[in-house]
Amino acid sequence: MPQQPVIIASDLEGVLVPEIWIAVAEATGIERLRLTTRDVADYDLLMQGRLEILREHGLSLPKIQAVIDGIDPLPGAAEFLRWVRGHAQCIILSDTFYEFAAPLMAKLGHPTLFCNMLDVDADNMISSYRLRQPDGKRQAVRALQQLNFQVVAVGDSYNDTTMLATAETGILFRAPDNVVAEFPQFPVMYEYQELRERLAPLIAHAR
Amino acid sequence: MPQQPVIIASDLEGVLVPEIWIAVAEATGIERLRLTTRDVADYDLLMQGRLEILREHGLSLPKIQAVIDGIDPLPGAAEFLRWVRGHAQCIILSDTFYEFAAPLMAKLGHPTLFCNMLDVDADNMISSYRLRQPDGKRQAVRALQQLNFQVVAVGDSYNDTTMLATAETGILFRAPDNVVAEFPQFPVMYEYQELRERLAPLIAHAR
Repeated sequence: MPQQPVIIASDLEGVLVPEIWIAVAEATGIERLRLTTRDVADYDLLMQGRLEILREHGLSLPKIQAVIDGIDPLPGAAEFLRWVRGHAQCIILSDTFYEFAAPLMAKLGHPTLFCNMLDVDADNMISSYRLRQPDGKRQAVRALQQLNFQVVAVGDSYNDTTMLATAETGILFRAPDNVVAEFPQFPVMYEYQELRERLAPLIAHAR
Repeated sequence: MPQQPVIIASDLEGVLVPEIWIAVAEATGIERLRLTTRDVADYDLLMQGRLEILREHGLSLPKIQAVIDGIDPLPGAAEFLRWVRGHAQCIILSDTFYEFAAPLMAKLGHPTLFCNMLDVDADNMISSYRLRQPDGKRQAVRALQQLNFQVVAVGDSYNDTTMLATAETGILFRAPDNVVAEFPQFPVMYEYQELRERLAPLIAHAR
């Protein structure tokens, strides 16, 4: 029996739901919204560009939320998360924004989410964004460890690797090949069933 | 608009569900299980006494879990919590044990719970308990604040007052008169509707 309770810290986009900006790009037909940190390394530059595009197209927060409302979690994700939460504690650690994630959280049964916030002006246009803190995913894992939780972190991309390295157990889920190649220290999984089988012995105490 | 996302840190027993040991005492008819920290100030002495009583009566963990399975959340608690989680993040901070709380968490839609663990021997009898850390509720509030959350703490008794004092906002909910009298610095509420009205302006950003 583990000496400490286990908490699953899971990334959101790519692991449980589709990439939100890509989905917005597809739903709106605005190709430039497909750019990600892989194309523009500077996150602030990328975000300012996205907000500029939204303004150009008159896409207010409610309009984007309506688009996001049409997105579903990845097939099997809701069932997987239900299983996890029936056996252990779970917190979603994401670089997205509460205002974007809300409809998806409802579809996932309102798991706890640590992410960031948007500022909206009088016309409901997104005026700016506020990161809760730098390297927020890793900071959250550290905070949980200070509360004497044992953390199992699951993520798919570069911005997850510091939390995977900090956690007692780090798992890459549906990571692209370049991330898999660059971080051979983490096990790689592609199906929720595989992930369940890996997690089951770690969280058995909470049954 | 608040500068930081708000997280509601809520106590469990007395706020969302009945006192678990009292409910077990009632369901089993074992009057001595009614003793609380108000009767026995030393928590470890109290817990060792409870485990001894359970052993005397042959009450294994599965038997106690079956009793707890018959307990329901307080009337209105599930609806209240659903409302909170639709508008803000929420973590339950409790001195109970995961093994006891599990059936109640299922009835509350699996909110995230930070609490403690039990050790069980080969006969499924509870052999000991493990607190995650001393003053765990306050430590959790501090950790959330370090992650740049603004914390609204809700609790009903002495063991909640340090977290209420540490949080940006502390609220007593259904607290007994002696706690209310001793901690006049905290607002006191008795109905979920009152609490909702108090929380609504604090979490409006997350709508």
